[in-house]
Amino acid sequence: MSVFDEELLDLKGKVLKMGAMVETAIRDSVRSLVERDKELSKAVIGRDHQINSLDVEIDEDSIRLIALRQPKAGDLRFITTAMKITTDLERMGDLAVNIAERALELSEEPLLKPYIDIPRMSQLAQGMTRDALDAFVKRDKRLAMDVIMRDDEVDDLKHEVLKELLFFMVQDPTTASRAMKISFVAQYLERIADHATNISEMVIYLVAGKIIRHMSLTEEQSKRK
Amino acid sequence: MSVFDEELLDLKGKVLKMGAMVETAIRDSVRSLVERDKELSKAVIGRDHQINSLDVEIDEDSIRLIALRQPKAGDLRFITTAMKITTDLERMGDLAVNIAERALELSEEPLLKPYIDIPRMSQLAQGMTRDALDAFVKRDKRLAMDVIMRDDEVDDLKHEVLKELLFFMVQDPTTASRAMKISFVAQYLERIADHATNISEMVIYLVAGKIIRHMSLTEEQSKRK
Repeated sequence: MSVFDEELLDLKGKVLKMGAMVETAIRDSVRSLVERDKELSKAVIGRDHQINSLDVEIDEDSIRLIALRQPKAGDLRFITTAMKITTDLERMGDLAVNIAERALELSEEPLLKPYIDIPRMSQLAQGMTRDALDAFVKRDKRLAMDVIMRDDEVDDLKHEVLKELLFFMVQDPTTASRAMKISFVAQYLERIADHATNISEMVIYLVAGKIIRHMSLTEEQSKRK
Repeated sequence: MSVFDEELLDLKGKVLKMGAMVETAIRDSVRSLVERDKELSKAVIGRDHQINSLDVEIDEDSIRLIALRQPKAGDLRFITTAMKITTDLERMGDLAVNIAERALELSEEPLLKPYIDIPRMSQLAQGMTRDALDAFVKRDKRLAMDVIMRDDEVDDLKHEVLKELLFFMVQDPTTASRAMKISFVAQYLERIADHATNISEMVIYLVAGKIIRHMSLTEEQSKRK
């Protein structure tokens, strides 16, 4: 294995590591909401700087790799895609912090209703994150497309959550403040899924040279039927 | 001027052009909401593919530039930053489409109340977009910091809008659906401003090698007093 191949392997490893940290942040932030665990919320917020540091590290490694090794086009695209992906991952980490902040606030007030859709959204978002990065390092177009297809389910769950919360607010206006905060959590999770979808679109562009946006994908799927 | 310098100038021009298109999309989407102008909303939605095309074009130009000219570190960082910035711009374009979609829906229902804070948020977001890109092409750290400082004003306006809408919903639950849609518009505008802030943070990192996140900036400002 050449030095460059080793360095590329290192880079992939760091991207996967950053993805794992983000997945953990999503899982823990939602768990801290459901279990009303203030310490866990604070832990998520406290660990975010580690995600940001890895973003900078990967950026620096990438620049160095490009400048020193002058990789050919295929590897060059892979590295610049890694740089874009870590930007999405860093934003996903920020969204997990936002969830943890709302969890802290909500733990100060009585529980509005048991959480069912939000934990489901969280599981989907975690899976999409993991699979989007897997698709990237393995250059797996099918897996990337699979992630994009899951975005609809997250959107549908978000709409369900918002509808349900609207119903609460209309029935009993004293629930409005809590309902709004919970609606924010659902929107943060939907945005996390959106980022995983964006990563997958970048993977498809990298592998197939095609722009797949969600709309185009649905057309692609219809053609295959 | 060398061929490379010309190509770099071209790249800057395209980034500014993409920024101008996004600025227009923001302005028109909010105007279509305030003026209940369905045709304008549809025009914003229809033009989005042009923003996406420019994103791809800038990406391809950047890859070609790096592969063919093997730029030294400073120029290399500038080009990879351009690639990240266009990702943010493309997302901002998507958010303008989201605003236009809500505008279409709201034009089907009676006006809830005159729009005051939302047009203000829109002006701020447009200005932040323009200045963030100016700061990038001119490598202007001060201007980038100035954009980041404006983010607080947008956040404050968003909170005002949400508070006001909550009040409406509590007073008269029949307003809930319209109030929610307007709250989404405020949140889209806040996210647009966030993207402009992210671009500015990337400019500061490019120019000064420093990570400035909003919190660090407030500390920096305090030290100077």
